[in-house]
Amino acid sequence: MLDFEIAAEEIMARCEALGNISQQSTCLDRRYLTKEHKQANSLVSGWMTEAGMTTWQDAAGNQWGRYNASHANAPRLIIGSHLDTVPNGGKYDGMLGVIAPISLIAQFSRDQVQFPFHIDVVGFGDEEGTRFGSTLLGSFALTGEWKESWRDLTDEQGISLADALVSFGSSFENIESATLTPENILGYLEIHIEQGPILENENLPIGIVSAIAGAKRFNITVTGMAGHAGTVPMEMRHDALCAVSEMILAVETHASSARDVVATVGKIENAPNGVNVISGRTSFSLDIRSEQDDKRDKVLADILQAFDTIAEKRNIAIDIQQTHSADAVHCDTQLKSDMIDGVAQSGVSPRILPSGAGHDAMAMASICPVAMLFTRCKGGISHHPGESITVDDVRYTVEALHHSIINIGKRHTGESA
Amino acid sequence: MLDFEIAAEEIMARCEALGNISQQSTCLDRRYLTKEHKQANSLVSGWMTEAGMTTWQDAAGNQWGRYNASHANAPRLIIGSHLDTVPNGGKYDGMLGVIAPISLIAQFSRDQVQFPFHIDVVGFGDEEGTRFGSTLLGSFALTGEWKESWRDLTDEQGISLADALVSFGSSFENIESATLTPENILGYLEIHIEQGPILENENLPIGIVSAIAGAKRFNITVTGMAGHAGTVPMEMRHDALCAVSEMILAVETHASSARDVVATVGKIENAPNGVNVISGRTSFSLDIRSEQDDKRDKVLADILQAFDTIAEKRNIAIDIQQTHSADAVHCDTQLKSDMIDGVAQSGVSPRILPSGAGHDAMAMASICPVAMLFTRCKGGISHHPGESITVDDVRYTVEALHHSIINIGKRHTGESA
Repeated sequence: MLDFEIAAEEIMARCEALGNISQQSTCLDRRYLTKEHKQANSLVSGWMTEAGMTTWQDAAGNQWGRYNASHANAPRLIIGSHLDTVPNGGKYDGMLGVIAPISLIAQFSRDQVQFPFHIDVVGFGDEEGTRFGSTLLGSFALTGEWKESWRDLTDEQGISLADALVSFGSSFENIESATLTPENILGYLEIHIEQGPILENENLPIGIVSAIAGAKRFNITVTGMAGHAGTVPMEMRHDALCAVSEMILAVETHASSARDVVATVGKIENAPNGVNVISGRTSFSLDIRSEQDDKRDKVLADILQAFDTIAEKRNIAIDIQQTHSADAVHCDTQLKSDMIDGVAQSGVSPRILPSGAGHDAMAMASICPVAMLFTRCKGGISHHPGESITVDDVRYTVEALHHSIINIGKRHTGESA
Repeated sequence: MLDFEIAAEEIMARCEALGNISQQSTCLDRRYLTKEHKQANSLVSGWMTEAGMTTWQDAAGNQWGRYNASHANAPRLIIGSHLDTVPNGGKYDGMLGVIAPISLIAQFSRDQVQFPFHIDVVGFGDEEGTRFGSTLLGSFALTGEWKESWRDLTDEQGISLADALVSFGSSFENIESATLTPENILGYLEIHIEQGPILENENLPIGIVSAIAGAKRFNITVTGMAGHAGTVPMEMRHDALCAVSEMILAVETHASSARDVVATVGKIENAPNGVNVISGRTSFSLDIRSEQDDKRDKVLADILQAFDTIAEKRNIAIDIQQTHSADAVHCDTQLKSDMIDGVAQSGVSPRILPSGAGHDAMAMASICPVAMLFTRCKGGISHHPGESITVDDVRYTVEALHHSIINIGKRHTGESA
């Protein structure tokens, strides 16, 4: 008899343990291909082994564990999420989706429950994109979508992605070996905290995702003219930071005036960044999302037009580089249906809701059907140390995942018969 | 016979040499109490010795050299400027005013020219304030104006001023030993590049300073709420960076609408500064200056009022710390007159102009009369690698300094007689 309460308590404890592995002493910050990434993989790998799984790490640094099917040539059901975090992040975003299936599988293993497919749990090395500015590096390796140009993406210390891979014990040339063959994949399931306020508002522990919003990201660099803060009259200045301030407000204004679109400038770097020096060059990021791609692109066009107008008016140069583009992804009808039933079987009224955040499931959708289960999180807070979930909600999550897997198994057996 | 051309060429070469001592490989960046500060002091000390001066370093890390008077109990004339730079700075701002008198004294030494006062050349360790956010640390040590609270000022790495002094081989407790006795100081002369466009516009190599604008500086921290860039609707955000963008534009607008006031946000730090995280906390600097203190304070009040309004509207917290305050300083009538004559004796029409930039002379004015000589710089550019002066203008500078010292000597002898 499976015990979801014990599983839920184990999951909570393991989220705590993983949350202690950080490259900063004052907050949780674990980025792609760092030594903390390696430590996290090692810890997770140990839990996988303990749960009766065989483990391996692929060329992109993703951590894998397999719970074997009842027969050898079975297809695979992949369940996973990511192990990296944003700087000053929380301990559930990503981690919950890797840890939860392992604890469920430990229960399967103990009770010798078997399925007509392998259950492969994956912990992706990069989803947040905070080290190299480009997201979903882990899952894009599985779908074979790495671009040659990513080789030269650099982090804040100027270390390239190619060099970071070598330091991690892999190489850019070897990434292809991580690519999966779509033919034998039944689907990809992902558990994730909601990162929004809907489930909390409706007093529900879990929900099923309808679609994931499409996102575009840019790095923008504005070049003005540095100068002495005391001697250059206001009317003679070409202050890069002032221009960027105007651009940031344009982003806020245009996104606010459209419904169902969010746009964010999360990162800014200013140079020379001296107290008494007029800013000469300022770079910033732009992230824009919507479940409606056309609506997002309309707002984006307005924003880029505003940037041009501001740059022209201030006689400063602007350079815009797109670093990410993903259209909205809709979850698979059948897998979603299996999950809706699974939620209902757990005693929870099935609530279907969209995801404003991007997830590894977006990338995986290009090679297999995907479905997602959301767990309620306090105040909708994520990407912040205040991220919080309850052991009771985790119990519902594991139970619904269990029923969903059973439902997929039944459907698979029915289809194969 | 003094050769001002040889002196000017030597000065240009030495500015190049000092400009190579940097804590960054890609630009000139030399901050207070770093190992590069120590290297610069050592190089300058060697040149002082070569020029026939005795040398020492005081407890604040200022480098000194003395060219002895004709008699032992003579008063002292101090000539100097600073040896620190802003990040990505130029090689003349500060350095010219330390190097030029040394090369002139080398000529005095060779020809055994003597004066009825010691000529003390000082290279201040900190004027720009870019490491600890508080300016004029070098000259304030001479005037005995260090505050106990400065002990805990920290740099970007979190190193306190007190700890940095210990690393440099001094200590906060020992700073008092650098304080000068005002009684025997004849005055303080400072040569500096103009850092503005007036001399270039009027086709003049040098000019005499009337007054130095007063400046106030602040560190401001705005605290909002971090969150996920994809899931928090625009209307529910408390984005610190958006609030700061609005504040930066308020600074620009208020300063631009007043004549003779400049205000600058040169430095910004954002946290967590992730591509996909709404900004939770943003800090920035404010520097505001005018030759008219009341006008500056009126604009400042308007800016601070705007900050409060923005913070309230956006429901975010704001913390404002003043780090620097100096009223406008007027140059000494007699020393200025000696310098006006000196400029005329060099064959240049004397142009008296204000200084929008702060200088060590501002601090020194509290213990002795001060005067300043400006050297034309290309495009008025400073705090930038594009800083540029000509050997010919440096020749005029040295010649005018020479005549000014002779004039001071004559007046002093006349007064003493």
